[in-house]
Amino acid sequence: MGTARITFDRWEGRYAQRMSGVRSSAVRDLFAAASRPDVISLSGGMPDVARIPAADVARALDEALAADSSASLQYGGSDGRVQLREVIVGLMAESGVRLKVADLIVTAGAQQGLDLLAKTFLDPGDTVITEGPTYVGALQAFSAYQPRIVSVEMDSDGMRMDLLEAELAALGPRGAKFIYTIPNFQNPAGVTMSPERRRKLLALACAYDIPVVEDDPYGRLRFEGGHILPLRALDPDVIYLGTFSKIFAPGLRLGWMAAPRPILAKVLLAKQAADLCGSNFTQTVAERYFASERWRRTLRDLTDAYRERRDAMLEALAEHFPAEARWTHPEGGFFVWVTLPRHLDTTAVLAEAVEHGVTFTPGDAFFADGRGSSSMRLAFCFAKPDQIREGVARLAEVLADRMDVYRAFVEAGALPPEGDAEASDLTSRVTEVSP
Amino acid sequence: MGTARITFDRWEGRYAQRMSGVRSSAVRDLFAAASRPDVISLSGGMPDVARIPAADVARALDEALAADSSASLQYGGSDGRVQLREVIVGLMAESGVRLKVADLIVTAGAQQGLDLLAKTFLDPGDTVITEGPTYVGALQAFSAYQPRIVSVEMDSDGMRMDLLEAELAALGPRGAKFIYTIPNFQNPAGVTMSPERRRKLLALACAYDIPVVEDDPYGRLRFEGGHILPLRALDPDVIYLGTFSKIFAPGLRLGWMAAPRPILAKVLLAKQAADLCGSNFTQTVAERYFASERWRRTLRDLTDAYRERRDAMLEALAEHFPAEARWTHPEGGFFVWVTLPRHLDTTAVLAEAVEHGVTFTPGDAFFADGRGSSSMRLAFCFAKPDQIREGVARLAEVLADRMDVYRAFVEAGALPPEGDAEASDLTSRVTEVSP
Repeated sequence: MGTARITFDRWEGRYAQRMSGVRSSAVRDLFAAASRPDVISLSGGMPDVARIPAADVARALDEALAADSSASLQYGGSDGRVQLREVIVGLMAESGVRLKVADLIVTAGAQQGLDLLAKTFLDPGDTVITEGPTYVGALQAFSAYQPRIVSVEMDSDGMRMDLLEAELAALGPRGAKFIYTIPNFQNPAGVTMSPERRRKLLALACAYDIPVVEDDPYGRLRFEGGHILPLRALDPDVIYLGTFSKIFAPGLRLGWMAAPRPILAKVLLAKQAADLCGSNFTQTVAERYFASERWRRTLRDLTDAYRERRDAMLEALAEHFPAEARWTHPEGGFFVWVTLPRHLDTTAVLAEAVEHGVTFTPGDAFFADGRGSSSMRLAFCFAKPDQIREGVARLAEVLADRMDVYRAFVEAGALPPEGDAEASDLTSRVTEVSP
Repeated sequence: MGTARITFDRWEGRYAQRMSGVRSSAVRDLFAAASRPDVISLSGGMPDVARIPAADVARALDEALAADSSASLQYGGSDGRVQLREVIVGLMAESGVRLKVADLIVTAGAQQGLDLLAKTFLDPGDTVITEGPTYVGALQAFSAYQPRIVSVEMDSDGMRMDLLEAELAALGPRGAKFIYTIPNFQNPAGVTMSPERRRKLLALACAYDIPVVEDDPYGRLRFEGGHILPLRALDPDVIYLGTFSKIFAPGLRLGWMAAPRPILAKVLLAKQAADLCGSNFTQTVAERYFASERWRRTLRDLTDAYRERRDAMLEALAEHFPAEARWTHPEGGFFVWVTLPRHLDTTAVLAEAVEHGVTFTPGDAFFADGRGSSSMRLAFCFAKPDQIREGVARLAEVLADRMDVYRAFVEAGALPPEGDAEASDLTSRVTEVSP
């Protein structure tokens, strides 16, 4: 919106200190550019909602209004409708997590869960441990409460437990307020935490007495391999964040948080202060949508589409991207993480890429400390396979030009040579695409 | 929910300091009791949503889905849909406020606006000026950011400007982060700020360089008298909070904030961190609902019903309540504020009242400092006229019993006598009910 361009602010100096730590998200600033019809968006994590049958949604609301229109239109409890929480209990059971309705509350997407957890736990200067890179919305939510964010590197099996253990040893027992992880098809890295790592993480969290926050938006969007039990299935003290944004639609802004009841009681107070209660309107629609088994076919259809798009992206990367590039092989979810030679600044590349009709998300958006500047996140969830191939080809062209210029400078002796990709463990160059 | 009863909490001592200031709202805790079918609720501020034609709502969604189902189901911009903001610009113009779409953002009810303003402006120890009593949800939202809350008494013309001026003089220029007011049919007092007071408030705010936050949920629910221009119509620097909860339905959780653009840009960052974006689903429904002129008839129907209920309540109070009681005469909105003899503790009265099948909200919920303990808020918005008469009669019986006991103690010399009602300027005993 236009307000981002304001330069003079007579209220400057009156805002809370926390606001100096909250910066605008490059991801969201890109929504505007990405909406130009000629631009292929490999940036936003938008689900392919066009595959959701509008008739199923309309029917859900009609049924809800016919049954009790006041229930949809009135204020509700802060913890969410029991009927929707029963749906969530059923979904979680399918993932291997046994819950009672009182073990969870409904939130405005998982994002509100992140905000409420930060609000409930974080005083300025407190430490939070995250994966690095991690979800940009989590960094935004946490930053507003002025914590110190420690990020732990990943490899293709997820967060590295040797590095986590070293951090925990340095911090000591209760040295962090919580450990935040996205174990499945991580955003932005696309990697999945192995079962062994999950057990190790829980053992470390227990030993150092630090709660674990498990954010699992993509868990049901698996393209290959077997289901891995969520952390919450292994330890009832894990705080679990779920969302309807990927298995139904983000436009309803519905998610949930399962947590030990004393924590949930605190979070509920924070939620009352934040918005009184969630939307009964969208909750009644979701209840009815999941009452019919048609949602399973729609989710299969979505997952099939995402698998095809991932394949298109991995094939196009192998075909077009420079030999020095490395990327991850996501078994599900929305994202591929690409690591490029250190001399490439992906924020600078982005400006040029937009001119060439393609967007992505620069890697430094996913770090609190400026790292990731020669990495990028590519989203395969939204563009169609052809567009993905074309988008990756356009992007490869921009990169090739930049690298030619760099090599010319190096050959002329104007710049020192450098090695391959940025130092990182997220460097597997996978060219094999599973069927 | 059951979590409120937890006694042992192994995470105690790990929550943020701010959580110690956030207490559960008696208003919301009462929702549970009030839902027993035999209990007449004079407590919650729930609109009479049964009067909203379900067909109009279903049609609104059908139209939205038919036009572009993806628009309803997808993520949206953090500032809200332009189409809904255009509807809001139109509504505000009817109230005398000229805005452009870029002057406002859509929020999850006005409550989210309160939370985001507090998050944007308040560091621990900052001062906020409110009316006393004031909206309990505002106290909750503000408290989470650890401010000092100064409350200024009202009389039947709203916030007393002589008292505000004295507070401001004591605090000095920029001595408070903002002044929070509900000028129309105040929650909980039911009084309306006169045009003269509005001009005086703006002059004082300008002189002391303190932003004014105008919360106006009930402005369009006027039963008698002429429209009074909002503060925002008189001064473009006023931050204005509006909501669809009373002119449409609270179940959609839609409200808005109009503010100077630099402030709006900051608030928008806070909103991104809190929930990414509002619900496109409910926004598209609201756009279509207001596209038809039928909403005006529904709002007239609602306002007529509330007027009849207010009349029933004022008549019943005059008929049944003890001679020592005083109450306000709301010209619109949802609430009457009753002031009782000082020896009555309305929290104690409430427990007994629930047994007698009626609920109200104890007055101390509306103060940050424990005042208001012999006052109560009575809501006439939700119960039907017969129920209101019956509820007030039941409540009067409880009060009469308590007062008999008190008088017996006084006559026996066991307690000192006291004067009439608690010291307050909200003491007009109005028995005349306008037609």
